Amino acid sequence: MEQHILQELRTIVPEERMFVDLAERYSYSYDASFGEYLPEAVVQPLNAGEVCRIVKLAGKHRIPLYPRGAATSLSGGPLPVEGGIVLDMTRFAHKLIIDRENLLAIVSPGVITADIHKKAEEVGLFYPPDPSSSHVSTIGGNISENSSGPKGLKYGTTKEYVIGLEVVTPLGDLIRTGGKTVKNVTGYDLTRLIVGSEGTLGIVTEMILRLIPKPKARMTLLATFDRLQDSGHAITKILSSGILPAAMELMDNACIRAVEQFEPCGLPVDKEALILVEVDGHPAAIEEEIRQCEAICYEQGASQVRVAKDEREREELWRARKMVSPAITQMGPTKISEDATVPRSKIPDMMERLNQIRSKYQLNLVVFGHAGDGNLHPNIITDKRNKEEMKRAEEAVGEIFAAAVELGGTLSGEHGIGTLKAPYMEMELGEAGLSMMKKIKEAWDPYNIMNPGKIFPRPGQIKVVLT
Amino acid sequence: MEQHILQELRTIVPEERMFVDLAERYSYSYDASFGEYLPEAVVQPLNAGEVCRIVKLAGKHRIPLYPRGAATSLSGGPLPVEGGIVLDMTRFAHKLIIDRENLLAIVSPGVITADIHKKAEEVGLFYPPDPSSSHVSTIGGNISENSSGPKGLKYGTTKEYVIGLEVVTPLGDLIRTGGKTVKNVTGYDLTRLIVGSEGTLGIVTEMILRLIPKPKARMTLLATFDRLQDSGHAITKILSSGILPAAMELMDNACIRAVEQFEPCGLPVDKEALILVEVDGHPAAIEEEIRQCEAICYEQGASQVRVAKDEREREELWRARKMVSPAITQMGPTKISEDATVPRSKIPDMMERLNQIRSKYQLNLVVFGHAGDGNLHPNIITDKRNKEEMKRAEEAVGEIFAAAVELGGTLSGEHGIGTLKAPYMEMELGEAGLSMMKKIKEAWDPYNIMNPGKIFPRPGQIKVVLT
Repeated sequence: MEQHILQELRTIVPEERMFVDLAERYSYSYDASFGEYLPEAVVQPLNAGEVCRIVKLAGKHRIPLYPRGAATSLSGGPLPVEGGIVLDMTRFAHKLIIDRENLLAIVSPGVITADIHKKAEEVGLFYPPDPSSSHVSTIGGNISENSSGPKGLKYGTTKEYVIGLEVVTPLGDLIRTGGKTVKNVTGYDLTRLIVGSEGTLGIVTEMILRLIPKPKARMTLLATFDRLQDSGHAITKILSSGILPAAMELMDNACIRAVEQFEPCGLPVDKEALILVEVDGHPAAIEEEIRQCEAICYEQGASQVRVAKDEREREELWRARKMVSPAITQMGPTKISEDATVPRSKIPDMMERLNQIRSKYQLNLVVFGHAGDGNLHPNIITDKRNKEEMKRAEEAVGEIFAAAVELGGTLSGEHGIGTLKAPYMEMELGEAGLSMMKKIKEAWDPYNIMNPGKIFPRPGQIKVVLT
Repeated sequence: MEQHILQELRTIVPEERMFVDLAERYSYSYDASFGEYLPEAVVQPLNAGEVCRIVKLAGKHRIPLYPRGAATSLSGGPLPVEGGIVLDMTRFAHKLIIDRENLLAIVSPGVITADIHKKAEEVGLFYPPDPSSSHVSTIGGNISENSSGPKGLKYGTTKEYVIGLEVVTPLGDLIRTGGKTVKNVTGYDLTRLIVGSEGTLGIVTEMILRLIPKPKARMTLLATFDRLQDSGHAITKILSSGILPAAMELMDNACIRAVEQFEPCGLPVDKEALILVEVDGHPAAIEEEIRQCEAICYEQGASQVRVAKDEREREELWRARKMVSPAITQMGPTKISEDATVPRSKIPDMMERLNQIRSKYQLNLVVFGHAGDGNLHPNIITDKRNKEEMKRAEEAVGEIFAAAVELGGTLSGEHGIGTLKAPYMEMELGEAGLSMMKKIKEAWDPYNIMNPGKIFPRPGQIKVVLT
């Protein structure tokens, strides 16, 4: 970046919040996905005014801007793939107001999601979205990617809880979308357009989140199955019985074995699948519901069902699920974490397809996920230095996407498209569908400075390149 | 419209589904709002293929297109304000499939909303959005306007239940947005952009709706208050007590009197307000909740609280609320029905402002609405032949909007902008905010053929004209 531009940048943010040294820039070159890309400069804005001025400067000089939260993205969201300036939003965290009367939270983008959970629960309220990174990830990142997690089944995704935004547009204007009311039909829903747009349509500088009363109680069960097929049927039977669990998690045999190897906790390594079901609400209601879930699991061929008797036992059951990510990370140096999602009735079919892909490409493929909403996480454990295996992994990833789309599903349920899935967009959306998205991007961001290189494939790009 | 264009149109839809006679076109010149505008032709497409061809023809000849459902719009949504072709979508109604396993409904735009309610409930499922016109309005219209109703408080609006669309773009391409999964972050959320865009961004030809299990039971109470202020406090107290009612309706004194005059049902005409609270869910939970609501109402100064003992009594309580619209319609030939919405804690302030506006302009102003989510319906009863009174009504409407925006609310909670609120858009959104919406419209619809004259004000237009 030319010196005079850096000079101009220094008039906006002071020296101590701007980094240009290689060593400092290096820490901003990666996220939780693949690839390393060095930004030319890093700034840490503290308020919307600074962001507006940075965006205007970037527009004038046609410099790519990469907003970044805690960089836990699994799809490359914050990677500065074309250099330019990284906006580290983690220090932009001064506001976390809970408005009890209106059941709202007003939050700055750098606030950590778990802090919103905590502060809402202190006054009996509840912010449901719970990505597994919530103890480190920022709400700004969650909003950019429309993050979700186990509770998506009953409570929906981040999007369902964002009702208003303050946004710096790609032209550097500060606008407000939505507001403090749940009902709002004043023009187009820019709030929901921006949530999940992966930072390509603007930089969010404040958000208004809807909260709900905290459920009074919760109960959890863990059921093991000799046959994966049966666990799939148990899931659909529970859902069509009139129960809407707060979470419904699935682990396949490879996943069970991975966890048990990482930290033995008595999981049955010979079973094809286990499911974890949690219900929440009024104590009388959930007592009845969990018994019904237990009965359905046995009817569908569960070999064992354990219902947690208290909070301690509940945490024990969840422990197996929470060990999945660390266990998998231990299995090999490189983890390709996907989130292809299918209509929930197609989970057994998708599991079958994943088995075929595992055999065909001879890969270490572990499957777990939020089965209740069809959001599976096939993880390929590999080593990026093994070029030959990485090539097979790339082919396998392409087939996973194709299988999901063929079964009526989608490339990504909650991780986002980023750099990794961009080449497959047209497969799902068709040329006309993708073009309608591009028209919005081009109309809003004429200089293509907002997180360029994400979501939209490069011309002719038809495959993900992991190596 | 030139003869050769009509000729071309006849090659797409047969004679019996195309109307050009004045008498026939006249029935398509109005909706439930204001104004009469004659279309040049009316067609009744039956499938997406026909819609694509009609849109391409309209694009070629730059002819405005006006999609129309049951025309129950209160904001002018389907009015053919620039002539052109009306697409009557009511015969496009062949599909209403309930997918029990995936908790989905797949529906054609001409299907009546109440039929979706009925068909879902037959198999123990529930489609919550319940605009009061649901027994006649089409789901296509509901989606265009993002309609809502009393259940928005607990369950959200139409948008919260639409997860996939088939849409004919303004260029006549058929695209699919979203899909059959609740979690989907594959690119921009075009589904939610199109829902509520009032037919200005495309014509919806199929929708995938999310259903939920039907609540097991419900209980209802009606509380009367000597002071309006107290009813507002009861509402916020109930909501901050951890209860999320399915509905929470408010009627002011003018509204109580209107109903009692229309059909005496023992309402207390001397009270300033009544509220209707309904809770649903597990029988044990709601029994407890309704008693808690009752206690809160008394604590906040209710003069009387009646809890319905059975379904018959429940219907009796709701009867008062359901009589509101017919009662008001009887009060005068012209009804201006607004839906300004404020954060719920501001309801007492907004009621106060409405009282001031009533006195200042000496108008017959009746207020009721969905108080739990801040969505009020101030209705002005007047006579459009009385030019002088209509002028006062116009001024009052402008002040109602200004008050809502000042209190942190919005122009429209559920009726849409249409022709009636377009002049006030900039007041709420600012120039930059409105311009971001316009950029989408211009990028998607370069010939401005999709429902032109709606949402966006004409240059220099600063006031609604009702006369």
